[in-house]
Amino acid sequence: MLKKPIIIDTDPGIDDAVALAIALFSEKLDVRLITTVAGNVSIDKVTYNALRLLKHFGKSIPVAKGSAQPLLRPGIDASDVHGVSGMEGWDFDEPDYGLLLPEHAVNAMYRTLKESKEKITLVPIGPLTNIALLLRMYPDVKEHIAEIALMGGSLTRGNKGVMAEFNIAYDPEAAKIVFASGLPIAVAPLDVGLKALVLPEDSAKLKGMNHTGDMIHALFQKYRGGSMKTGLKMYDSCAMAYLLAPEMFEIVETFVDVEVQGALTAGCTAIDLRGYLKQAPNAKVCVDIDDVKFKEWFLKSLSVCI
Amino acid sequence: MLKKPIIIDTDPGIDDAVALAIALFSEKLDVRLITTVAGNVSIDKVTYNALRLLKHFGKSIPVAKGSAQPLLRPGIDASDVHGVSGMEGWDFDEPDYGLLLPEHAVNAMYRTLKESKEKITLVPIGPLTNIALLLRMYPDVKEHIAEIALMGGSLTRGNKGVMAEFNIAYDPEAAKIVFASGLPIAVAPLDVGLKALVLPEDSAKLKGMNHTGDMIHALFQKYRGGSMKTGLKMYDSCAMAYLLAPEMFEIVETFVDVEVQGALTAGCTAIDLRGYLKQAPNAKVCVDIDDVKFKEWFLKSLSVCI
Amino acid sequence: MLKKPIIIDTDPGIDDAVALAIALFSEKLDVRLITTVAGNVSIDKVTYNALRLLKHFGKSIPVAKGSAQPLLRPGIDASDVHGVSGMEGWDFDEPDYGLLLPEHAVNAMYRTLKESKEKITLVPIGPLTNIALLLRMYPDVKEHIAEIALMGGSLTRGNKGVMAEFNIAYDPEAAKIVFASGLPIAVAPLDVGLKALVLPEDSAKLKGMNHTGDMIHALFQKYRGGSMKTGLKMYDSCAMAYLLAPEMFEIVETFVDVEVQGALTAGCTAIDLRGYLKQAPNAKVCVDIDDVKFKEWFLKSLSVCI
Amino acid sequence: MLKKPIIIDTDPGIDDAVALAIALFSEKLDVRLITTVAGNVSIDKVTYNALRLLKHFGKSIPVAKGSAQPLLRPGIDASDVHGVSGMEGWDFDEPDYGLLLPEHAVNAMYRTLKESKEKITLVPIGPLTNIALLLRMYPDVKEHIAEIALMGGSLTRGNKGVMAEFNIAYDPEAAKIVFASGLPIAVAPLDVGLKALVLPEDSAKLKGMNHTGDMIHALFQKYRGGSMKTGLKMYDSCAMAYLLAPEMFEIVETFVDVEVQGALTAGCTAIDLRGYLKQAPNAKVCVDIDDVKFKEWFLKSLSVCI
Repeated sequence: MLKKPIIIDTDPGIDDAVALAIALFSEKLDVRLITTVAGNVSIDKVTYNALRLLKHFGKSIPVAKGSAQPLLRPGIDASDVHGVSGMEGWDFDEPDYGLLLPEHAVNAMYRTLKESKEKITLVPIGPLTNIALLLRMYPDVKEHIAEIALMGGSLTRGNKGVMAEFNIAYDPEAAKIVFASGLPIAVAPLDVGLKALVLPEDSAKLKGMNHTGDMIHALFQKYRGGSMKTGLKMYDSCAMAYLLAPEMFEIVETFVDVEVQGALTAGCTAIDLRGYLKQAPNAKVCVDIDDVKFKEWFLKSLSVCI
Repeated sequence: MLKKPIIIDTDPGIDDAVALAIALFSEKLDVRLITTVAGNVSIDKVTYNALRLLKHFGKSIPVAKGSAQPLLRPGIDASDVHGVSGMEGWDFDEPDYGLLLPEHAVNAMYRTLKESKEKITLVPIGPLTNIALLLRMYPDVKEHIAEIALMGGSLTRGNKGVMAEFNIAYDPEAAKIVFASGLPIAVAPLDVGLKALVLPEDSAKLKGMNHTGDMIHALFQKYRGGSMKTGLKMYDSCAMAYLLAPEMFEIVETFVDVEVQGALTAGCTAIDLRGYLKQAPNAKVCVDIDDVKFKEWFLKSLSVCI
Repeated sequence: MLKKPIIIDTDPGIDDAVALAIALFSEKLDVRLITTVAGNVSIDKVTYNALRLLKHFGKSIPVAKGSAQPLLRPGIDASDVHGVSGMEGWDFDEPDYGLLLPEHAVNAMYRTLKESKEKITLVPIGPLTNIALLLRMYPDVKEHIAEIALMGGSLTRGNKGVMAEFNIAYDPEAAKIVFASGLPIAVAPLDVGLKALVLPEDSAKLKGMNHTGDMIHALFQKYRGGSMKTGLKMYDSCAMAYLLAPEMFEIVETFVDVEVQGALTAGCTAIDLRGYLKQAPNAKVCVDIDDVKFKEWFLKSLSVCI
Repeated sequence: MLKKPIIIDTDPGIDDAVALAIALFSEKLDVRLITTVAGNVSIDKVTYNALRLLKHFGKSIPVAKGSAQPLLRPGIDASDVHGVSGMEGWDFDEPDYGLLLPEHAVNAMYRTLKESKEKITLVPIGPLTNIALLLRMYPDVKEHIAEIALMGGSLTRGNKGVMAEFNIAYDPEAAKIVFASGLPIAVAPLDVGLKALVLPEDSAKLKGMNHTGDMIHALFQKYRGGSMKTGLKMYDSCAMAYLLAPEMFEIVETFVDVEVQGALTAGCTAIDLRGYLKQAPNAKVCVDIDDVKFKEWFLKSLSVCI
């Protein structure tokens, strides 16, 4: 079977850790490169986390460190939500720094894309700073990108601002650049992530499932302060789900743009399902998800990890 | 029983017609004044419509004509949605122009409020231009206002812009002025209106119920091009429902502000349920409605009309 | 000789006091009404000041109190610049409150304009809040206005913000409404006011010239803390100069709009001399002044006061 | 004498050609790298022009091609002003493409800065896209930059928008990033460039002065359509003048920021000479120039070219 080549751009983060596990053990995906971006926690921490996860997974994927801050705005530290390291609750082994490329993430992406025979799909599950810089530094890179399948934005309300989702609100200008790129874009917004709930009885199944299940369960436990009563929202995994099991989603082609001017709503994604903005569609947006199927898929996907 | 004195500021409009019927025949409300505001259709048409409705209802409430356009922005004509007159499908008698005050709506509101022994509740179910002008022309009017119970805004998506509800999007600056006024404000947003559905089997009950039921049924028929299959959304009636049967709503005290800067999101209400903006609450927002109870209440409310 | 009928909308203020003196004693102007607007100091203070000045001048012009704050933004108190009362340094007699109309300035302007056989020129020398409210409350008023000759805006830099002049920066939205009104507008911007300098040797001539000269000299003295070394800038008098001696100015017809979105530049007037905005002219802008002639005119104008 | 090491970031352009001539033949400057940026004309044209100029000057400075478009906004083509090629009127020899580095300008700058023992001064005389990307890609680059001495912005009015200078208006977000960098910044704004006039009698001296004088004279002739009656404005040369003869300028330390939100004023630089924004100084701004001395310096600087 031909594996789909992808580059994952990420800011792990617990949520990202789960998505990485699913991607790295999927037999349908060929992860060519992992790039890091400041978001959930600082660029040094997310890069360290990416390397620790690869060590845990026993995978030798090259990693390149990317942007330390948003394009225009001051950074936001979400370590109040994600813990000091961004991934607390598990005693990870020290990582293999040999996997860390000397190049900047943007240059590593460009080189990887140019060197590949096939077009590669970019899978950004953090802020879009690196992707925006890639598009601006190397306009010719577009012909090497199959699709940008991202987690971000919201059809309705936000989780960072009143109407703004974290990944987009962290760097609205970067997101605007990406949506204006003319490339094929797929969006798994906050709304499907909120519905892609892993309930207590399901997360309990992770413990003992395998080494990765234990790790994820422990991160969840710590994150939730011991309580797993309410469901866990698998935002980033939805981007992987879109790649691996798109039939679980209701997908609509529509126009998406990002508010960069608003005093109250900067970072709000205008996902124009009803055509108010009179623009041609530029993205496929996952507007709904079959949550029952998602849960099955989620557990099955993690069951093949080591 | 002591009736609650109110002033209704409106841009009829079918939806407004229903809300007016409910208010004017309620034994709990004392409608002291009806003011008109451009919105659904032009100021002349909405004023004509208000007068025609009063004639139909056999009610002698003074009417004052208000703002012809938004404060800052060019007007929007919604006659594509509401028909040329804004109220087509019924053969209204010519109205009694004797009810039309020679004063501007803003001056009429001010005078009515000042002359009243009790504080009066303002019930704006159109754009907030008149209310904003009232607050800016006469800052001392605040002590005469009991509450502003308005239909407008959205917790999620819009019906005029991607994220903006019509009444607010029509005049975002006016809405910002109102929400910043420091007065008690209650909001029935688009979301409860969308849930306050009157289904085909219910709207069928209007026909023959009484003269007003016939009229409303006819307006609905015309508006829907003969088909009543999907439910009719009773946005403006929710403002009356808040006054008359608040127990049907889940109400949250929170901070509300209006985006006036956004390029894509101007007119979006930021209803800050999770406290992202770190401001003290300035409004009571109806975040949910018991739709079964609403339907009963709705039909019962209209059953007492002539 | 036919006098030009005008309404002066003002926030006195020393600068306004001089402009009022010139207008009230000019044989070419017929001041029909003075309306007040919050700006230099609070609405109560500017109204009190207007009445005190009329008492001083021995003139019985009706006065109407207007807006206490800008349309959208919080007010700015400039009493740090203008002194606690806005007009310190002279022992004014208590004013004649009989001149104060019971109406709001906006209603008084509307009535005065409607009752006049000839069109009237509005001369706003403070923030444009009242004029904007007038235009929005009474769209039909336009046919009764000959011209709006205002002091405000800047071709270059500001005196309230980096690029914003005080009168416009105080209420940018009001100014935007005025410039978009379609009415004939003449603008005396900050730049000509800066050049319309009254030097120490000239202001010395005011003392002893007449009762008004003494008063103005005393206000200047107090304002400048006793020193009159640098020239005094006669911003507001430039609006009167435009009406009375337009030949002193270089006047250009051009498009003017007001920035209301800028984070750093809100209140900046875009006076588009080179046509970047590709809009038809909507104003006559005084881009230069013959400062020698101005000084002569200025002293001569004040010499006829009592 | 120790030469000051610099990197010139440029979009030639006639104006840039003159500045490059001055810099490359100055015995006080060591031009380590020339990077190109889209602005006056497209990135391919400006790069071609930079190489053609080096050939003309007989200088072997490495050139790296940079950004093809602004960070966030669509590009502006100024070829209406600068001619199709950006440098018409002289028959240049074909350039030496061996000087063109295979790296992106941003990477070339970073490498050059890191490899240098001394800190290097960046001299951007075009839009600031490359410099902004450099700062965001490589935050550690700051410790290798001595100063950013740029041509851009305006104290007063603009030459691209009503209040916006071309280099800043072309990419306001990039400029905002640069001014917020915390690095030492020197600004030669439009205003000194407008005063740094080279009058007809002076430009006549260029012809026959030397090969470069002939070339510049010819470019001017073509640009002005044969007429040299009004003075030529040497904007970009002012940045070199600041480096080579700062005593010609009146320089003020102040806070500078860039408007990115304004609907009418985006790209306007707020050069806060009077402290309205209450921010610490972040730039040295050339607020005036001794135009007599400038002319002498200008001709003398070009006289040493080949």
